[in-house]
Amino acid sequence: MDLYWMSGSPFAWRVTLALAIKKVDYVGHEIHGSKGDNKTPEFLAMNPRGKVPVLKDGDFVLYESDAILNYLERKYPEPSLTGKSPEEAGHIWQRTLEIESYLAPHLGLFGRYLFRGDKTVTMEMLAEAASAISTEFTTAAGWLEGQDWLAGNTVSMADIVLYPIAALVQRLGKHPQAAALPFTVLPFGEKLPALAAWMARIEALPGYDATYPPHWRT
Amino acid sequence: MDLYWMSGSPFAWRVTLALAIKKVDYVGHEIHGSKGDNKTPEFLAMNPRGKVPVLKDGDFVLYESDAILNYLERKYPEPSLTGKSPEEAGHIWQRTLEIESYLAPHLGLFGRYLFRGDKTVTMEMLAEAASAISTEFTTAAGWLEGQDWLAGNTVSMADIVLYPIAALVQRLGKHPQAAALPFTVLPFGEKLPALAAWMARIEALPGYDATYPPHWRT
Repeated sequence: MDLYWMSGSPFAWRVTLALAIKKVDYVGHEIHGSKGDNKTPEFLAMNPRGKVPVLKDGDFVLYESDAILNYLERKYPEPSLTGKSPEEAGHIWQRTLEIESYLAPHLGLFGRYLFRGDKTVTMEMLAEAASAISTEFTTAAGWLEGQDWLAGNTVSMADIVLYPIAALVQRLGKHPQAAALPFTVLPFGEKLPALAAWMARIEALPGYDATYPPHWRT
Repeated sequence: MDLYWMSGSPFAWRVTLALAIKKVDYVGHEIHGSKGDNKTPEFLAMNPRGKVPVLKDGDFVLYESDAILNYLERKYPEPSLTGKSPEEAGHIWQRTLEIESYLAPHLGLFGRYLFRGDKTVTMEMLAEAASAISTEFTTAAGWLEGQDWLAGNTVSMADIVLYPIAALVQRLGKHPQAAALPFTVLPFGEKLPALAAWMARIEALPGYDATYPPHWRT
């Protein structure tokens, strides 16, 4: 099984976390957007949208990270990341989709502003996005009341979908231009201790270290 | 089982389509945003985000439409809307998530412009959204090459997620202010005949008629 990923992509990171938790062997191929690796004819033949992650299992090619998680879940059911009963499955998906619908869409703006120098991004837009992101992290911290994981008592898809976003927001907060970024939930350790404790739980999972974005270490 | 829905909500409609295909009995409760039905303490206790659909099955309450589809899929597996093999499941989810990620997010703007009189929505923003929507419908029509349904030879979650959006865009095109809306894929029958034929296939499904938004009939 081959996985194409980029360092720091929260979408790729959720897949490497799932593979670590399920202890599935794979060959990782780190590609670089800056080198155009995701726009080659070979890559576009796998994913015409030019995005990571892409999973190749024999002749079968799959993109869209949550679709890949579902594939892995069907192929390697244990440990389950999507629940056993219909009720567990429904609840795990609900939490996952709340993250996908109300939190994840606000992230792109910061990438455009900080890393791509997009001049159309205004401070008003950033303030609105940071406010929405802060609200959603506060909500997610509330989900941890009385339980160790976002959707119950074991790690699930909801956790591995949120964790890379939380790590990314934490990193954004340390950016040189951070003073201008109105994240009211940072630092998590001080503002949302339940969320910080949950992040430490993810970081203690066997195999976590190998999933850490290599360019973040330097 | 109780389902709370609003007439014309594409998110609620996908659930009523799934219930029709699976022939599951339920009690539908139509609520009205204009009357504040989704902001009552009783409704917010079910879904703090104040959105439809909400499913209540005994004491179990669930929101987020794709989570509800997953719950129904686990509880009433036949006919399956998410595939049998890992490969089928992965592919169906991939198509579904492509619709959710690249098409659905552009719809809200038209609602704000046409139905809520939001003055911050500019023609440039609408043109950009209509262009993205048109591109995605053209892509989806391509998925139908050589097959009757979006993700294979049977109706799946991808079909019931896209259909209500297609019906809504078709309706937007008939709005009095439609001349100002740059949808290049309308009418589907002329511009994307494969998509129009696929819509007719959905509309021929047993139980479809009962899912049609009542206020669209008048």
